[in-house]
Amino acid sequence: SVRPQIKAGFSNRGKTLEDDLNETNSFYLAQGIAVVHKKPTPIQIVDVHYPKRSAAVIKEAYFKQASTTDYNGVYKGHHLDFEAKETQNTTSFPLKNFHEHQIVHMMNVTKQGGIAFVIIRFAVTDEIYLMNYPEIHFFWKRMQDGGRKSITKEEVEAESKRIPLGFQPRIDYIKVIDSILSK
Amino acid sequence: SVRPQIKAGFSNRGKTLEDDLNETNSFYLAQGIAVVHKKPTPIQIVDVHYPKRSAAVIKEAYFKQASTTDYNGVYKGHHLDFEAKETQNTTSFPLKNFHEHQIVHMMNVTKQGGIAFVIIRFAVTDEIYLMNYPEIHFFWKRMQDGGRKSITKEEVEAESKRIPLGFQPRIDYIKVIDSILSK
Ligand SMILES: [Mg+2]
Ligand SMILES: [Mg+2]
Repeated sequence: SVRPQIKAGFSNRGKTLEDDLNETNSFYLAQGIAVVHKKPTPIQIVDVHYPKRSAAVIKEAYFKQASTTDYNGVYKGHHLDFEAKETQNTTSFPLKNFHEHQIVHMMNVTKQGGIAFVIIRFAVTDEIYLMNYPEIHFFWKRMQDGGRKSITKEEVEAESKRIPLGFQPRIDYIKVIDSILSK
Repeated sequence: SVRPQIKAGFSNRGKTLEDDLNETNSFYLAQGIAVVHKKPTPIQIVDVHYPKRSAAVIKEAYFKQASTTDYNGVYKGHHLDFEAKETQNTTSFPLKNFHEHQIVHMMNVTKQGGIAFVIIRFAVTDEIYLMNYPEIHFFWKRMQDGGRKSITKEEVEAESKRIPLGFQPRIDYIKVIDSILSK
């Protein structure tokens, strides 16, 4: 399907957040800035055929739930671990975007001295924010204690850092990590 | 197939190195010692069916070559990144066990301040060693410069640390990381 070209800086190119983060990570790797990779989707393999003289073919497999986050890597000796999430909502970020085990994983990483965070994209306005785990923890706990099941847009704006979109790298999240590290 | 029980301490239980490392990592996670996970095998998915009322089924897919190492995670703020390799050889560890991109990845991680290493198991004697990336780099470079295509058993013994096998954790590699960090 053909998408109309929107003349609005770098926004709305029709790429997913994952595409943009993969490009960003390739740029970081090529420039020696950071080593961050997306983890493969975990698959439960049930049946594999081994044809003669050609590659093994997986004939039956199922998607498994990931036990960790989407991305991890290393930056100046610091372990980075993060989840990328997009929402079509414009007024809040629904916490149902997280699985409990992702929250637990980010908490474990934080306790172990790593930097765990979430990159949130509001798709309609193409705004991207980085929220560090301690803030996510606060809002997750609020929900568990019977409070609202989302983070309001105002709270996202107040409790995370906006990442401006660029050309190269597309989503320069390492700048936000620098500001977290310099605190 | 039934395996005869070998009464030799913890050795030769018929588990793979990967099984033992997964158990070790589960132990570390449960005890709050470290957060290390095996990365899923990367798969190229070609065809997926979406039956009504049941889970999506992958009907055609292929194994892709991994672009990184098998395991990574965080320990006391340090990024850990490693490959697990078994050999049936008794006198040397053949360097053909590595893909070039794995070496490049470990080098990138090391340059970025992470700890990259290889856990090598000599299957016949069930001896397990941890070799840090700088040593692997030396032997890889020697091969590239026209030298031998393997690391002799004596060199492995001299240039890496043996990991004694235990009950829980099975392969206590974090102890070796501690000795690397205290240097
Ligand atoms: Mg995600
Ligand atoms: Mg391996």
